[in-house]
Amino acid sequence: MSQRALPAKILTYESINPHVKRVEYAVRGELAIRAEKLKDELSKGNSHNYNFDTVVNCNIGNPQQLKQKPITFFRQVASLMEYPDLLLPENRTQVEALYPIDAIERAQKLLEQIGSVGAYSHSQGIPYIRNHVAKFIEERDGYPANPNDIFLTQGASAGVQNILQLIITHSNVGIMIPIPQYPLYTATLALYDAQPVPYYLNEEEDWGLDISQLTSSLSAGRSKGLDTRALVIINPGNPTGQCLTEQNMREIINFCHNERIILLADEVYQTNIYQPAERPFHSFKKVLRSMGRKYEQFELFSFHSVSKGMIGECGRRGGYYECTNIDSRVVEELYKIASVSLCPNVQGQIMVDLMVQPPKRSDESYTLYQKEVDEIYMSLRRRSTKLSECFNQLEGVTCNSAQGSMYLFPRIRLPQKAIEAAHQAGKQPDEFYCLAMLDATGVCVVPGSGFGQKNGTLHFRSTFLPPEELFDGFCTRLQRFHNEFLERYHD
Amino acid sequence: MSQRALPAKILTYESINPHVKRVEYAVRGELAIRAEKLKDELSKGNSHNYNFDTVVNCNIGNPQQLKQKPITFFRQVASLMEYPDLLLPENRTQVEALYPIDAIERAQKLLEQIGSVGAYSHSQGIPYIRNHVAKFIEERDGYPANPNDIFLTQGASAGVQNILQLIITHSNVGIMIPIPQYPLYTATLALYDAQPVPYYLNEEEDWGLDISQLTSSLSAGRSKGLDTRALVIINPGNPTGQCLTEQNMREIINFCHNERIILLADEVYQTNIYQPAERPFHSFKKVLRSMGRKYEQFELFSFHSVSKGMIGECGRRGGYYECTNIDSRVVEELYKIASVSLCPNVQGQIMVDLMVQPPKRSDESYTLYQKEVDEIYMSLRRRSTKLSECFNQLEGVTCNSAQGSMYLFPRIRLPQKAIEAAHQAGKQPDEFYCLAMLDATGVCVVPGSGFGQKNGTLHFRSTFLPPEELFDGFCTRLQRFHNEFLERYHD
Repeated sequence: MSQRALPAKILTYESINPHVKRVEYAVRGELAIRAEKLKDELSKGNSHNYNFDTVVNCNIGNPQQLKQKPITFFRQVASLMEYPDLLLPENRTQVEALYPIDAIERAQKLLEQIGSVGAYSHSQGIPYIRNHVAKFIEERDGYPANPNDIFLTQGASAGVQNILQLIITHSNVGIMIPIPQYPLYTATLALYDAQPVPYYLNEEEDWGLDISQLTSSLSAGRSKGLDTRALVIINPGNPTGQCLTEQNMREIINFCHNERIILLADEVYQTNIYQPAERPFHSFKKVLRSMGRKYEQFELFSFHSVSKGMIGECGRRGGYYECTNIDSRVVEELYKIASVSLCPNVQGQIMVDLMVQPPKRSDESYTLYQKEVDEIYMSLRRRSTKLSECFNQLEGVTCNSAQGSMYLFPRIRLPQKAIEAAHQAGKQPDEFYCLAMLDATGVCVVPGSGFGQKNGTLHFRSTFLPPEELFDGFCTRLQRFHNEFLERYHD
Repeated sequence: MSQRALPAKILTYESINPHVKRVEYAVRGELAIRAEKLKDELSKGNSHNYNFDTVVNCNIGNPQQLKQKPITFFRQVASLMEYPDLLLPENRTQVEALYPIDAIERAQKLLEQIGSVGAYSHSQGIPYIRNHVAKFIEERDGYPANPNDIFLTQGASAGVQNILQLIITHSNVGIMIPIPQYPLYTATLALYDAQPVPYYLNEEEDWGLDISQLTSSLSAGRSKGLDTRALVIINPGNPTGQCLTEQNMREIINFCHNERIILLADEVYQTNIYQPAERPFHSFKKVLRSMGRKYEQFELFSFHSVSKGMIGECGRRGGYYECTNIDSRVVEELYKIASVSLCPNVQGQIMVDLMVQPPKRSDESYTLYQKEVDEIYMSLRRRSTKLSECFNQLEGVTCNSAQGSMYLFPRIRLPQKAIEAAHQAGKQPDEFYCLAMLDATGVCVVPGSGFGQKNGTLHFRSTFLPPEELFDGFCTRLQRFHNEFLERYHD
């Protein structure tokens, strides 16, 4: 690189799309980048500089990165789909020694329908798989679903972005989002230049949603002259882990119906339910259908994904959304937009098929499938309790238990000196605390400021996904760090 | 569904994002939808209504849909990655009977680096794979490449959309695009509300690009008050199949440099080269580097994909783009945007790794790999000639031969009566002709109006991907249809 003065760039931070610049995405932000650097350091054998020898990523719901084993049957089918020669008669003996018969038959059936995982599919998703998704929804809810209203997507995020892009017509459009929220929503609103209309979840009530909050939030938005068109609900909650009651959901639908607001239901954690008796999952589609004729035209988009649940196939980028009561000409426009990206990756679509059609009781793989799902589920439940207890033992920290999802969102209370030190370092106090935690323990979490939080409160989000055997060491290190931190900054 | 009047929808064609409505995407448009319907009909055994028993999709570059076999080695590695238990010692005997040793070793190495294909990766793409991409570019061009300037993407389209989104700051931004063009570009400009600044390729000169066209196009844009920021080149061309000379590329770079315009080089067909002696492929990166210090800060984005070439893994959604001389703060913003979508699907990233690191001479799989690539290549070349000859035999049709890519773009001349009939049917004349072709022959092509064409000219785009054995029957049917069509509408 030459040393002389270089001509000015055409593309500079000043000259690019300002909406792109406004995007914030804490889950992959400074802490995650710092964690990557630490990993590099450790891999180079420089662990003597640190009190830990591994970095634990609690910043993102990425189960298989933290050694969660994939569901065997799902991967067996995917493996056969990749290499169809395995299904040739001459390979049968070896293949049957390696793969159960139901995996072989499922792969054969899928290949007949799809042809090749290397071919572009229908832009909306393979019709055969959309039929299975519709069947899955019907069985889950007890109400009909139409395959033509279902779009397979590259994970739920891509679907959410398509729908918001469709709804947002000008920079005065308001979209109601929960606070705390998953930053995909504020990031997408920034990118498409719409305004978040925040409603606050109630930490004292297990992060519950009270309708009065929706009313005041909506009128606050309207008093700002915002054209509020849609309400986003994340249920079970991310980062807050609450699971809504059916009664509460009816109130929400009624609120949206009266205010003529479209509902976007992010239901990717629908199987991550840890208090199934008290807080079972209900889909908004089902609750809507149970509310009768008055609501039969209510417009709803529901999102689901293969990345969460007990499946955790995040790297696959598979998911779907269902349009309920959406005008057919609008659905046509969604199809057109989908077709510009040609199609969602086919292995992601196949994983959706496996999610909605897992092995049945009569199938050879059923026992193993059920065992794997149950073990992951029980372990997640144990870990959620263990971690919330660990957090609640920390001085000045309070943490609701997780009714669902993969996250805890403990509230921290920091001494004034720490808050001042943070501001001197040009950081948010919670960010400052999380960076100190990372450097002291190797545990990477996300500051509450990345999700939004009530003024004057501080939190962080942590997944409870690390392997169970790590938990005790992990909690001890956290304990020690927290006390030293309070020590260092006590008033 | 009840019969009484329904309450008005909130989300209607009138109330959605007008930029979404402005998007047009002919490759998956009315003809493709009609073709799907015909397939349904035929699959229901209603072939007696038609003069054909299969629908041939020449509307989209989707090789494996048309029975092109995937590269065996690539799929073997992908298959092992899906089901890591295959790599356990106890399975070794069966697995070695089914997979060559180099596929097993490659999968092992990738798994060590990646962990699981089910985990989110680095948002920019797996560093290990980006290193291989950089190495590939260095070997292709003879100039250094930096892994940190490379972004793995869900196919090239996703990358193109990210870059255009970054560059477009207001609705007066102009982006120079070729006419005819691949509709991804006009679709994305419509979606992000920027203005196409068209420059015309010269059909008489094998769809060559003359610089005078760029100059006049740019001044036309500027006279409209457009802030023209970037120039898109598709090389080899889609839909036009031309391959630029090195001299021509230097002139283009010089033009952009003088006019302070960023270059976007869509090079996804870089290995689809059918006149290698006269028209070899040169990357813009290489030509730029060969031009010396004056151009050493020239800003370039280059796109590549696993969907084309001899690989044809469209359904995988894998690709990458390279940033050349892009300001580091701008690259950071691209990383942030990538992180909102979490990561490109991991199997797509693995396919990129395989594309840039195919088997070497010394590897067990080399012979088969080379044989498969050569056969696909030779066959594509034969088919391109066969089809252009077929088109040139049709009365009033002229077709340039393909120097590269997967498409022919013949010009058709229709009798006045046909043009009137088209307008009465509310169709473009070329669309009218293509719909008639589909109904008469089952062959689905895309009207030239979907790509843009000089006023007063008519074309269609056809891939030459159908299986070779179908070609003769295919050409005969086309011949017959064309004559009957001229017959019916002759003046």
